[in-house]
Amino acid sequence: MTLQIVAGTANRALAGSVASMLGIEPAAAVVERFPDGELRPVVDGLGGADVYLVQPTGPPVNEHVMELLLLVDACRRAGAARITAVMPYFGYARQDRRGRAGQAIGVHVVANALASAGMWRLIVVDPHTVALEAICAVPAEMLTAVPVLSQALGEQVRDGTVVVAPDLGAVKLAEHYGRLLSRPVAVVRKTRLSGTSVIAEELVGDVRDRPVVIVDDMISTGGTIEAAAEVVADHGAAPEIIVVATHGLFVESAAKRLGRATIQRVLVTDTVAQPTRPEMPLSVCSVAPLLADAIRRLHRDEPLDDLLARA
Amino acid sequence: MTLQIVAGTANRALAGSVASMLGIEPAAAVVERFPDGELRPVVDGLGGADVYLVQPTGPPVNEHVMELLLLVDACRRAGAARITAVMPYFGYARQDRRGRAGQAIGVHVVANALASAGMWRLIVVDPHTVALEAICAVPAEMLTAVPVLSQALGEQVRDGTVVVAPDLGAVKLAEHYGRLLSRPVAVVRKTRLSGTSVIAEELVGDVRDRPVVIVDDMISTGGTIEAAAEVVADHGAAPEIIVVATHGLFVESAAKRLGRATIQRVLVTDTVAQPTRPEMPLSVCSVAPLLADAIRRLHRDEPLDDLLARA
Amino acid sequence: MTLQIVAGTANRALAGSVASMLGIEPAAAVVERFPDGELRPVVDGLGGADVYLVQPTGPPVNEHVMELLLLVDACRRAGAARITAVMPYFGYARQDRRGRAGQAIGVHVVANALASAGMWRLIVVDPHTVALEAICAVPAEMLTAVPVLSQALGEQVRDGTVVVAPDLGAVKLAEHYGRLLSRPVAVVRKTRLSGTSVIAEELVGDVRDRPVVIVDDMISTGGTIEAAAEVVADHGAAPEIIVVATHGLFVESAAKRLGRATIQRVLVTDTVAQPTRPEMPLSVCSVAPLLADAIRRLHRDEPLDDLLARA
Amino acid sequence: MTLQIVAGTANRALAGSVASMLGIEPAAAVVERFPDGELRPVVDGLGGADVYLVQPTGPPVNEHVMELLLLVDACRRAGAARITAVMPYFGYARQDRRGRAGQAIGVHVVANALASAGMWRLIVVDPHTVALEAICAVPAEMLTAVPVLSQALGEQVRDGTVVVAPDLGAVKLAEHYGRLLSRPVAVVRKTRLSGTSVIAEELVGDVRDRPVVIVDDMISTGGTIEAAAEVVADHGAAPEIIVVATHGLFVESAAKRLGRATIQRVLVTDTVAQPTRPEMPLSVCSVAPLLADAIRRLHRDEPLDDLLARA
Amino acid sequence: MTLQIVAGTANRALAGSVASMLGIEPAAAVVERFPDGELRPVVDGLGGADVYLVQPTGPPVNEHVMELLLLVDACRRAGAARITAVMPYFGYARQDRRGRAGQAIGVHVVANALASAGMWRLIVVDPHTVALEAICAVPAEMLTAVPVLSQALGEQVRDGTVVVAPDLGAVKLAEHYGRLLSRPVAVVRKTRLSGTSVIAEELVGDVRDRPVVIVDDMISTGGTIEAAAEVVADHGAAPEIIVVATHGLFVESAAKRLGRATIQRVLVTDTVAQPTRPEMPLSVCSVAPLLADAIRRLHRDEPLDDLLARA
Amino acid sequence: MTLQIVAGTANRALAGSVASMLGIEPAAAVVERFPDGELRPVVDGLGGADVYLVQPTGPPVNEHVMELLLLVDACRRAGAARITAVMPYFGYARQDRRGRAGQAIGVHVVANALASAGMWRLIVVDPHTVALEAICAVPAEMLTAVPVLSQALGEQVRDGTVVVAPDLGAVKLAEHYGRLLSRPVAVVRKTRLSGTSVIAEELVGDVRDRPVVIVDDMISTGGTIEAAAEVVADHGAAPEIIVVATHGLFVESAAKRLGRATIQRVLVTDTVAQPTRPEMPLSVCSVAPLLADAIRRLHRDEPLDDLLARA
Repeated sequence: MTLQIVAGTANRALAGSVASMLGIEPAAAVVERFPDGELRPVVDGLGGADVYLVQPTGPPVNEHVMELLLLVDACRRAGAARITAVMPYFGYARQDRRGRAGQAIGVHVVANALASAGMWRLIVVDPHTVALEAICAVPAEMLTAVPVLSQALGEQVRDGTVVVAPDLGAVKLAEHYGRLLSRPVAVVRKTRLSGTSVIAEELVGDVRDRPVVIVDDMISTGGTIEAAAEVVADHGAAPEIIVVATHGLFVESAAKRLGRATIQRVLVTDTVAQPTRPEMPLSVCSVAPLLADAIRRLHRDEPLDDLLARA
Repeated sequence: MTLQIVAGTANRALAGSVASMLGIEPAAAVVERFPDGELRPVVDGLGGADVYLVQPTGPPVNEHVMELLLLVDACRRAGAARITAVMPYFGYARQDRRGRAGQAIGVHVVANALASAGMWRLIVVDPHTVALEAICAVPAEMLTAVPVLSQALGEQVRDGTVVVAPDLGAVKLAEHYGRLLSRPVAVVRKTRLSGTSVIAEELVGDVRDRPVVIVDDMISTGGTIEAAAEVVADHGAAPEIIVVATHGLFVESAAKRLGRATIQRVLVTDTVAQPTRPEMPLSVCSVAPLLADAIRRLHRDEPLDDLLARA
Repeated sequence: MTLQIVAGTANRALAGSVASMLGIEPAAAVVERFPDGELRPVVDGLGGADVYLVQPTGPPVNEHVMELLLLVDACRRAGAARITAVMPYFGYARQDRRGRAGQAIGVHVVANALASAGMWRLIVVDPHTVALEAICAVPAEMLTAVPVLSQALGEQVRDGTVVVAPDLGAVKLAEHYGRLLSRPVAVVRKTRLSGTSVIAEELVGDVRDRPVVIVDDMISTGGTIEAAAEVVADHGAAPEIIVVATHGLFVESAAKRLGRATIQRVLVTDTVAQPTRPEMPLSVCSVAPLLADAIRRLHRDEPLDDLLARA
Repeated sequence: MTLQIVAGTANRALAGSVASMLGIEPAAAVVERFPDGELRPVVDGLGGADVYLVQPTGPPVNEHVMELLLLVDACRRAGAARITAVMPYFGYARQDRRGRAGQAIGVHVVANALASAGMWRLIVVDPHTVALEAICAVPAEMLTAVPVLSQALGEQVRDGTVVVAPDLGAVKLAEHYGRLLSRPVAVVRKTRLSGTSVIAEELVGDVRDRPVVIVDDMISTGGTIEAAAEVVADHGAAPEIIVVATHGLFVESAAKRLGRATIQRVLVTDTVAQPTRPEMPLSVCSVAPLLADAIRRLHRDEPLDDLLARA
Repeated sequence: MTLQIVAGTANRALAGSVASMLGIEPAAAVVERFPDGELRPVVDGLGGADVYLVQPTGPPVNEHVMELLLLVDACRRAGAARITAVMPYFGYARQDRRGRAGQAIGVHVVANALASAGMWRLIVVDPHTVALEAICAVPAEMLTAVPVLSQALGEQVRDGTVVVAPDLGAVKLAEHYGRLLSRPVAVVRKTRLSGTSVIAEELVGDVRDRPVVIVDDMISTGGTIEAAAEVVADHGAAPEIIVVATHGLFVESAAKRLGRATIQRVLVTDTVAQPTRPEMPLSVCSVAPLLADAIRRLHRDEPLDDLLARA
Repeated sequence: MTLQIVAGTANRALAGSVASMLGIEPAAAVVERFPDGELRPVVDGLGGADVYLVQPTGPPVNEHVMELLLLVDACRRAGAARITAVMPYFGYARQDRRGRAGQAIGVHVVANALASAGMWRLIVVDPHTVALEAICAVPAEMLTAVPVLSQALGEQVRDGTVVVAPDLGAVKLAEHYGRLLSRPVAVVRKTRLSGTSVIAEELVGDVRDRPVVIVDDMISTGGTIEAAAEVVADHGAAPEIIVVATHGLFVESAAKRLGRATIQRVLVTDTVAQPTRPEMPLSVCSVAPLLADAIRRLHRDEPLDDLLARA
């Protein structure tokens, strides 16, 4: 089985880097778009190949999901021996339960459609729901970019820095950073004042006069991060806040929000394509080495235990 | 089983008309759109119901397909007894074969994803591929709007009118119109001049000084219609050309193209939502009665033979 | 469709209560056990029925899962119109991800086997993984016993009481109790001392001289609860600790552990059968009304939104 | 993976030729027929092999389909690594839609049964429905014999020859021949005389005094060809008509019909086994090279774009 | 749900009797046969119905199986609420294991294809393999005609009669007859003489001067019965032998074989259509009452325990 | 593909022997058992491997089945190329039909769950139902230990020995032994005295003063064997009876029962783990060579016809 990287349109730069690190050219793949918006991919030279389809499903998420479904179908018909969807960012991962009766469960719908189309295996990075591999009918490898990002933080993490989780859902992630950076963890949480219905943002842990790194798996509108930054400021944190997340969607006015003075730096990866965003102090470090490593091992049927999320 | 109409966002007006003709209110259904473009539908009151989900998948096609997948999932979880997708326009229907190796087959991908999500039956109107019901894993009812459109043409079809198929793929459709209107059929086709590679547009049939009705299943950019209109003009047809199609997508500059002088009227249905289009002489007649009739019969388990395409 | 309750052997008392509340007799169902340990269920009178199979899968979990699989098969062959597995406690729910490569994902295995055997819908109570409904191929209703337990706590919740989550995984649950009881929430969490590898149990929130209710979804060996009780005691909580959990497995020396002086009362439900346990101050309140309500509504195709977990 | 050709009984000569061209012996395969008509195939030596099962499903079509289903099952149990059904003629391909409510869709039934039995891929030649690959759940390669037949026509295609499609369904095929032979195309079609219900066979294109090649995908009873031959004769075509089709079923009195004086030659392939038919001037050219080429490439995971129908 | 009986062509008389006993008309169903042998069924009026498709698959077995697959598909598309295949004789039931590596397992292939096509439940009579219901993916009801046949034997079973199983495979069946007729059972079996390879037919039980009833599930070529008749004659049985079997295929020279003097009467049912066979003393008793009873109960969701084979 | 043997906990000794004969180490596999009885297997180094999972499902059968399901899941997620379940003893194989309406069919449930979990192929030894391979959705190889056991009997089979089947179900097996040992076969069967309801155990064949070998596929409580031993003793058999069976479960008081004086020796294989059983004269011969041979051949894609049951 030949190793082949196929790049969807969602992040061709990332796919190119991954292929380059693996010492191969991305396979020929064109995604035609008709005037009415229908997509038609064409792939070449995949007969008998071990194909890795690189397509994160960030915005426009529905376009990217449909393109991926069509690409899986094209690869299957082209005779690919096995098709691994590489979705560094997996859209709809937040819909892993119904908040109320009558809702859909988006992550199930997407995972199920991909498996039905012929996906054999899935690679994701820091998915919003850690049950993703239980949800997916085919095996899934949940990689983590936390070591990559921790290393990228490098010497910026000065003495006394505190890792802050902006809500309870991010605590395990924050603890992962804490372990790698040997730093304590604080948590912003909503709390209820006894006997009343008033909610207050509470900060669990001490940040006074200390540098802060706020961490999350993803940044969408930036609202959660902005609120957390305010809370840590209110608690007297040192002014230069660093924000770290695996996935930087930056939708709506996120860039502007995060460009405010107290945030010194926003560090994300390139799981979704990152255009230049002059409004904010953005740094991007690449998950290409992580993905290339995972793909190389899977292609060689080697274990990738140490790359897995929450390992 | 209660009959329920659920309206997706693609054509709420049509769904409302259908429900109204059936003497019911559309079921409560909201499709929330998050800032990052993810959709989350919520439906209510569908436990044990016979649900008809009205959602044509015209542009933006990928948004509409994903929304439909999510709606099917929501209805299934809400305990719908059976879920019929009513897709008056079925996007990706033109991709029913590979034009070359390496392509996907979009119609298979969409039909397969819907069936995997829990669709029990499908209703479409004049799909581009007549094999749609063979492609789909669940039963499909392929209705036709040709009688509706023929009747709408009404007295505009003057003596001597010729029905013109703009290419070979439309001939069966044109013959259907011909039968209903008691009119002869002519065909525009590409032809090869003997021994050379030169291609010419040929008109099979006589249109000289006669009114012409050009018919097709759908109008996308209007290019095919425009070319056919030129051919019939070149062959001396009477100047007031009428154009009829079931699905009016009118993407890109279609409206402008079809607004030129020689086209007197463009008649389509509302399978896809039709905004006002001042650039062209558009008439819209509704498929709501057709859909309501089909849904009423299916709900009552009655046959709908006479409503089927190419019956 | 007739409503039928079928009782597996795991908790016949609960099934009997549910049936009684629904005003029906449980259907005839016998589970024969052969000398070699093979099980053979026999059911009667289920043709065309809407069957609810009550079988929590607490210890011995593998016996109970296999019995349930066989019961689903027996119901299917007996012509049941639809088969809902009612698993008030869903064993293997903690295995919703791989902690390391090479592991199985037990919750996927169990849910998948049940769906393959013919389960049409699933009812659970406070499952350990909230993604259970996304994991399961068939629709799942995740009920919550928190309101039932909150009410049972009744007047025992004195002024000043604090709800304590014994670890981060229980915080959302604790907040649910907090909302219903109008009480503040504290959390026990492991924390890392800056720059070192030393871990300490930390208590987030103030419990000094206040009564404490420790809440969790399940109690297995009681280790987590015991540790949390020590932490709150160390932080000066009032001595009479109440422990509340939906599922009381009490395996190994759990009863003895929880029988120690500082724990005044342990309140669980009967999702798993509760023998008398003289070693500890156990109170049991029944989920039978909750299940009967959910089954009645599902049978009538009514929504059960307000019964759902984390609604 | 070893390449193996397994011959069903439908066309052992063709399978033998294909194997010979690939330089291998057909695998041992016996199909026992019991006195009551049940079939039982036995295959040998297919463990781990890349198996190509050659079995066109011409008459007796139901025998041949059932034999193929059994052969697929036998190969699967024998441990074949992948099973490709090579059906040069695919019976039931005309049933790709319902002509009226209440019908079955035969092509779906056959394709679905084969996929359920374990078919991994399908190879066909000039199927009657071009949507076959969209209908089939597994990938299908639709080869075309048009180039083979065009070459076989060789110098018999004199100057001035016109390619004639005997009905509208054959126009795309005729145009394929036209391109390869650099000849113009004419079409026989039914037409409606204005304002009346009278139908006439019309000839689109000029054949006066010119040699004619009538082309179709298949010849069953020969009725369509006979009628077309009369129409071209009525329009003054030169008397020596050549008839070309991929599949020659020649059922009922087809051979006699086509043996009439004005038809000079009937050229078909051996997709279905061709006994000698003295009643008509039959020539047979083999698709064995085409199939051998396709199989060789698929076995080597090479693309076969240029062999595909309508490429 | 309306009850509907659909008659395939294999045994319309039986289907008619069944319908008549149920007080209904068989549903409109036509099976068109094209000149090339392809079948196309058309059914009417089955929307929402509880359909029972009566089609035994005796010779020509492959024709009958394919027709049944197409009928299931037609019923499914016509909107049947549930489709029960009533196959009084289930062809290919003897192929329930491989006699050697490389064989197919016909019964699996047929059962699997039917389930894939949409069969919801299966009714058979005395299938050759008692594991049929375990083999079939959908529930199967295995009825027995032994009580019907025992009663038909009536007073012909004189005092002293012995029931004889013609081989070991028929012993359980013979014991069933023995129980109903209060008669002892003897068995013909092949035996090995100690230390040699010589095989002899042995008769276990005493038949000297006693009337004999040889019983089997089916008679194909009659060879087994003929051999058993010789053995009982050799052991001095009274000359008037009665032969009883559920299924009378009578292929090849079976009628002639069984017409010999020592066989006084051959009693079978009409599971497969029985033409008059003047060569042998054939009596036919109908399974129509049995099938009508089973269908009535299944339609009403009543148990049919007492009708089941080997109950 | 690397060959890998994974040992479940049911019979690690056997798995070790098999691996040793194949010249490899068993793969790393640990099955963790939690205090509440949930199992969690961990496997290592199986990426791309051809995995054979050795796990007979003798008592405790439900534990062993669940463990096997989890192991299949773990292997699948670990990237095993193909997963063969090696179940020398297949529990629930006796449940291959319903003895009455309302029962489950255990063998279907188990086989179906394993296939759903990802089992690719199955190896069993002398399964109780010979239709197992027809029941199982994936290919199954049914090996036989009869040659191994026959050889182990060795010279103990003295002149004049008779092979005795303890009931009709064991006759085919007894004949297999008879063929290999060149010995005649006798059968114990229940018989009905003419005209009465009295049942007597009858011995078909002559055993007077002759040594006897009673054979069966499995021994559970030993009741059937004990009864047969009494019958042969009553018929004057020589006192030293040998008992042979493939599977020795020996549940309840089987060991004591079979330890009685007239039974000289009990010979079984190690398909299920055999502890020392001092109460009876037990000899155990291993199926490890048989399994190793079968696995070696399957791994090399070689046929294993001569190893198959009832070949």
